[in-house]
Amino acid sequence: MTDLHYMQFALQLAKETIGQTSPNPSVGAVCVKQGEILGIGTHLRAGDAHAEVHALQMAGDRAQGADLYVSLEPCSHTGRTGACSDAIIRSGIRRVIVATVDPNERVAGRGIEKLRAAGIEVDVGLCEREANMLNRPFFHYIQTGMPYTTLKAAITLDGRLATSRGDSKWITSAEARHHVHELRHQYDAILVGSGTVLDDNPFLTTRLPQGGKHPIRIILDRRLQTPIDANVVTDGAVQTIIFTTSDRNVAYPSHFVRVERIDPSRPFLRTVLKKLGEEGIMTLFVEGGPSIHASMIEERLAQDAYVFIAPKLIGNGPSLFTSDRAEMNDSTKLQFERVTQVGPDILAYAQFEKEDDSCSQEL
Amino acid sequence: MTDLHYMQFALQLAKETIGQTSPNPSVGAVCVKQGEILGIGTHLRAGDAHAEVHALQMAGDRAQGADLYVSLEPCSHTGRTGACSDAIIRSGIRRVIVATVDPNERVAGRGIEKLRAAGIEVDVGLCEREANMLNRPFFHYIQTGMPYTTLKAAITLDGRLATSRGDSKWITSAEARHHVHELRHQYDAILVGSGTVLDDNPFLTTRLPQGGKHPIRIILDRRLQTPIDANVVTDGAVQTIIFTTSDRNVAYPSHFVRVERIDPSRPFLRTVLKKLGEEGIMTLFVEGGPSIHASMIEERLAQDAYVFIAPKLIGNGPSLFTSDRAEMNDSTKLQFERVTQVGPDILAYAQFEKEDDSCSQEL
Amino acid sequence: MTDLHYMQFALQLAKETIGQTSPNPSVGAVCVKQGEILGIGTHLRAGDAHAEVHALQMAGDRAQGADLYVSLEPCSHTGRTGACSDAIIRSGIRRVIVATVDPNERVAGRGIEKLRAAGIEVDVGLCEREANMLNRPFFHYIQTGMPYTTLKAAITLDGRLATSRGDSKWITSAEARHHVHELRHQYDAILVGSGTVLDDNPFLTTRLPQGGKHPIRIILDRRLQTPIDANVVTDGAVQTIIFTTSDRNVAYPSHFVRVERIDPSRPFLRTVLKKLGEEGIMTLFVEGGPSIHASMIEERLAQDAYVFIAPKLIGNGPSLFTSDRAEMNDSTKLQFERVTQVGPDILAYAQFEKEDDSCSQEL
Amino acid sequence: MTDLHYMQFALQLAKETIGQTSPNPSVGAVCVKQGEILGIGTHLRAGDAHAEVHALQMAGDRAQGADLYVSLEPCSHTGRTGACSDAIIRSGIRRVIVATVDPNERVAGRGIEKLRAAGIEVDVGLCEREANMLNRPFFHYIQTGMPYTTLKAAITLDGRLATSRGDSKWITSAEARHHVHELRHQYDAILVGSGTVLDDNPFLTTRLPQGGKHPIRIILDRRLQTPIDANVVTDGAVQTIIFTTSDRNVAYPSHFVRVERIDPSRPFLRTVLKKLGEEGIMTLFVEGGPSIHASMIEERLAQDAYVFIAPKLIGNGPSLFTSDRAEMNDSTKLQFERVTQVGPDILAYAQFEKEDDSCSQEL
Ligand SMILES: [Zn+2]
Ligand SMILES: [Zn+2]
Ligand SMILES: [Zn+2]
Ligand SMILES: [Zn+2]
Repeated sequence: MTDLHYMQFALQLAKETIGQTSPNPSVGAVCVKQGEILGIGTHLRAGDAHAEVHALQMAGDRAQGADLYVSLEPCSHTGRTGACSDAIIRSGIRRVIVATVDPNERVAGRGIEKLRAAGIEVDVGLCEREANMLNRPFFHYIQTGMPYTTLKAAITLDGRLATSRGDSKWITSAEARHHVHELRHQYDAILVGSGTVLDDNPFLTTRLPQGGKHPIRIILDRRLQTPIDANVVTDGAVQTIIFTTSDRNVAYPSHFVRVERIDPSRPFLRTVLKKLGEEGIMTLFVEGGPSIHASMIEERLAQDAYVFIAPKLIGNGPSLFTSDRAEMNDSTKLQFERVTQVGPDILAYAQFEKEDDSCSQEL
Repeated sequence: MTDLHYMQFALQLAKETIGQTSPNPSVGAVCVKQGEILGIGTHLRAGDAHAEVHALQMAGDRAQGADLYVSLEPCSHTGRTGACSDAIIRSGIRRVIVATVDPNERVAGRGIEKLRAAGIEVDVGLCEREANMLNRPFFHYIQTGMPYTTLKAAITLDGRLATSRGDSKWITSAEARHHVHELRHQYDAILVGSGTVLDDNPFLTTRLPQGGKHPIRIILDRRLQTPIDANVVTDGAVQTIIFTTSDRNVAYPSHFVRVERIDPSRPFLRTVLKKLGEEGIMTLFVEGGPSIHASMIEERLAQDAYVFIAPKLIGNGPSLFTSDRAEMNDSTKLQFERVTQVGPDILAYAQFEKEDDSCSQEL
Repeated sequence: MTDLHYMQFALQLAKETIGQTSPNPSVGAVCVKQGEILGIGTHLRAGDAHAEVHALQMAGDRAQGADLYVSLEPCSHTGRTGACSDAIIRSGIRRVIVATVDPNERVAGRGIEKLRAAGIEVDVGLCEREANMLNRPFFHYIQTGMPYTTLKAAITLDGRLATSRGDSKWITSAEARHHVHELRHQYDAILVGSGTVLDDNPFLTTRLPQGGKHPIRIILDRRLQTPIDANVVTDGAVQTIIFTTSDRNVAYPSHFVRVERIDPSRPFLRTVLKKLGEEGIMTLFVEGGPSIHASMIEERLAQDAYVFIAPKLIGNGPSLFTSDRAEMNDSTKLQFERVTQVGPDILAYAQFEKEDDSCSQEL
Repeated sequence: MTDLHYMQFALQLAKETIGQTSPNPSVGAVCVKQGEILGIGTHLRAGDAHAEVHALQMAGDRAQGADLYVSLEPCSHTGRTGACSDAIIRSGIRRVIVATVDPNERVAGRGIEKLRAAGIEVDVGLCEREANMLNRPFFHYIQTGMPYTTLKAAITLDGRLATSRGDSKWITSAEARHHVHELRHQYDAILVGSGTVLDDNPFLTTRLPQGGKHPIRIILDRRLQTPIDANVVTDGAVQTIIFTTSDRNVAYPSHFVRVERIDPSRPFLRTVLKKLGEEGIMTLFVEGGPSIHASMIEERLAQDAYVFIAPKLIGNGPSLFTSDRAEMNDSTKLQFERVTQVGPDILAYAQFEKEDDSCSQEL
């Protein structure tokens, strides 16, 4: 049995809880001595025990002299659950194998230092790339204070989101729509514009065979037009936050609904994302409509995108993106990470290229 | 050694000559006795010997009592090269294994009948699907009299062919552009509008490391605006046919260039395709511009499409398709047959869905 | 998220602890509500908490109304750790998904009955085949009272275990020898004859980069010839049991060594296996020599075999198996389950075919 | 279209005729100009036209200025068919792409020299390794004057060819036996000892669904005991050569049978192989029995082996190889090139390791 084997198991444990630990990272831990697994742990939910704590508890006294594999640097600060680095030191662990360093400035190497200062051997960097990929949203959130934001769109092969009459029903297949529900399940919050609410009156919940987590619903509604009988208002499935710049007073008849006013002098979208970050929303799934997608792209607020492309040509209606760039050189660049066929449709998953150095100073 | 093995070899022989046999099909033949290959053949070029003839010549007297594997029904009519079915009968072949029946009404089962009437055992249908795919263009051409027509477009992820200022340079990558040359090589003719000639002054030739076949160049130019010093006029690389409805007289200074007048009262595109069919052009590669693509799609004249999708969002400019369909239901449907990544771009290959029964009676 | 996904995760958790839970099965458990994982568990070691208990503890109060995925039927009897079925009932679990029924007659469906009697929905059989494969040794052990027994041999391509002078060194490659250590790690005990001890003086320990579990060492030594300074006697790495029929008294100078006398009137091998079964040894790895392999095969005591085949022809020496079967029809039959190349050698993994109905009544 | 593409096609053409060109190599040729295939050829049978000739004939005048891809260096000597290098020069070929040099000392670079001297560009070495693999038997034959010799054996997992009573029927499965017929088809000759003829009275022919080539049958029969009514004598399917050292006179009642006397003072096996080489037999498939295999191995006359390993343990009978090597180090070494499962059996294909420099001077 190799270090690699156990680290991959720790990563597997982390991967299974993606989407349920926000605003914490997904972390897995495995405690091993002489090729025997003594304890396993995964962080389940913010506020609960960290992965290391579960693994050490399971191992008990046998942790003495054992190795601990963790997919992320153990924490060093005393949070709600006590610092994991202290717990590791107390347990008598001999060696800690860390996939990647925690970018959180309260940790950022201090967990590792603490362990080493206590005489524990620490190896860093095994499966680092995979661990970083796994917690890309967490790393983004820690570094920007805003949720990791994913655009989702369904277009025709000629790039249309709908016909010019607004018909966007059934662009994509049942398989693609099912896939959207699997994606929603992984996000803390889902965002749409009030236009979408007015046009389609969606529920925006996750509907999967074995159930799924409903993301918190975010409605961008500058003029506060969301009807009091909209499904997102009345269904009581999960919290709905309506962001507006309007002074109107609307009494939404559900304690699931909250209206947040944004100072009209502030940049609307960016301020919304900052507020969501403050509320601990680490991942955001943006389902449109067109003008919200366009703003997210123009203001460089999105990190990646799922674009379903249907094998259809319709010839009119709004395109996935509208802007006034003059030259092809001015286009917003992405990178296709994965292209698959979902039923009759193509699903292209792309990441937006980062502008160098521009992220942190913009607001 | 099995029938399947030898038929796959015959198909392989046919496949290697795709694009060079127009308006004939690609055909391969293998002559076998007691597991020994006695002759192989492939049809190289219209006017040359058929695949069966090559294989039988190679086998010589030994063909007596042998089996012959052919990817398409042997011809029964006396053409430039004599009917293959007669040659097979003369050679003493014992059994013929045919992948698929020739749709050409001068053959259409008569080749098989003739062989059977002469006492030869004939098995039909081994690898039929593969053989039909291989000669899809030929089958289309025989059934409609028009070339099998493929659209090629390069778009951004938001479906644009260019910016609104007309900048379409470098939408896609060098890898994608190289791939276009491999495609051109396989077609009899390439078609663009005069707008493309005026804007880009392209050569429309095939530029590949080991050389390649230049397709005949077709320019759609109703008002006959192609300049006399355009590259397609002056380079002398391959024939250029300019279709126009104009009465103007332009003296193009090259015997490679021919101007064809279409009666303005006739449907322009369809008439062009019919004329190309009459000239023996079996496959046509349409590189745009936008209005030609749109017409090809609207008039259901295209059979398939290669769409390169670049990971870019530009936000303005002409879309891949423009039309006034009201409902998503009215869209033109395709089927994605193959989706790959070519360098940073996606290459989607799609076939247009056929309308039932409407093909043959339209003109 | 689907039932299948969570059951596969439970199986993955079980799989990681194969070889360390004897004489208990490897079991994994996952507690899920609305697509959120609330707890995970794996059984680590006999005497420790069962997988279900870990998963329920992690879930805490949230287990109320959740689903529990387990790779083996929850126990119903009150053992050292309390019956899991009772714990599940107390926790308020709504539905239990069970991969396979426990063959242990103290459970054997009673766990499921108990859950159903308490109104819990129970689904049985998802991934059953995989779950049965995973615990094949446990099932065998429960049904026969003897360890699941695996033969390991390294032979030349002409089937020899050694030259006739006894040279068996370096038959196989370093890669193959490394692989043997990975196999040893997974077994409770390793068995060799005294001849092997006398000839090679092996350690029979597991030597892997990240350490490994040493199996208990079993020496078959009818005449009690194991030297008092043999490595298996003096190294103190792990317990060594010497089975003999001799009355001799040898004072082995280590509390790691135990001598067990078998009544010479009893069938030696079978009695040893029964005794090992009584001591809780569930899996046994038999490394030879030739006469022990032969007896294991003749008496149908082995369940499977790893045979390394080296690309060498030596031409003399003992063969993998010696017997006096007259006809090819009388041969012992196996089934190759997996054939791979390990370095320059072939590794064939085969299972012995079961004789119908003969297993249980033989002793 | 790339050089690689066309060379792979030439190799494919060569590959299809493996086993039917002895004692000539399998060769494929493809003539190409501007991405258009002008001619293809493959060498079909010794005495027939070479691959290049077929390809050039098909190309006709168009060969002028074209490229020619050949899997083996074109011949330079005037044989039955005229030198290919001369034909290439006459045809006006511009460039020749050669996969590998012909080891035949009458060629050995002279073909290439001749082409270059005529001003033709020659590129050597594209796909060299694959081309060498393809014609391994030819290369061996040219270098040693003896056939490339392959052993075939079917053994139990304990390495036995039969029980001690001689029962070898049904060691392996129907699938394995079918596979043997596919192998026989590829060889010029098949060799067994008279013991096999006396025990099993085999036909030694190739029986495949679509027919197959029968190899010439070679019987090693020092005492000339092959019965006059043996199947290999009477069936008239293909020539049978009986090699003996006996002076007996046996009148075999078939002109298909020939008896060859070997001087008893000469090394029997090696002399037989030399004689077979002189008769143009390039590939030899040796099916046993045990003593012939043993001699072939001891005298290093075999180049490779197909060993079918059945999942059976029988415990007695002759092993695949018998010899008196003392140490494992003295074993004959092979290299497993391919290991597959054929029905329930393993098929291991191995090549014998070459002794350095010892091949050419031995006889
Ligand atoms: Zn922590
Ligand atoms: Zn024909
Ligand atoms: Zn339990
Ligand atoms: Zn030649």
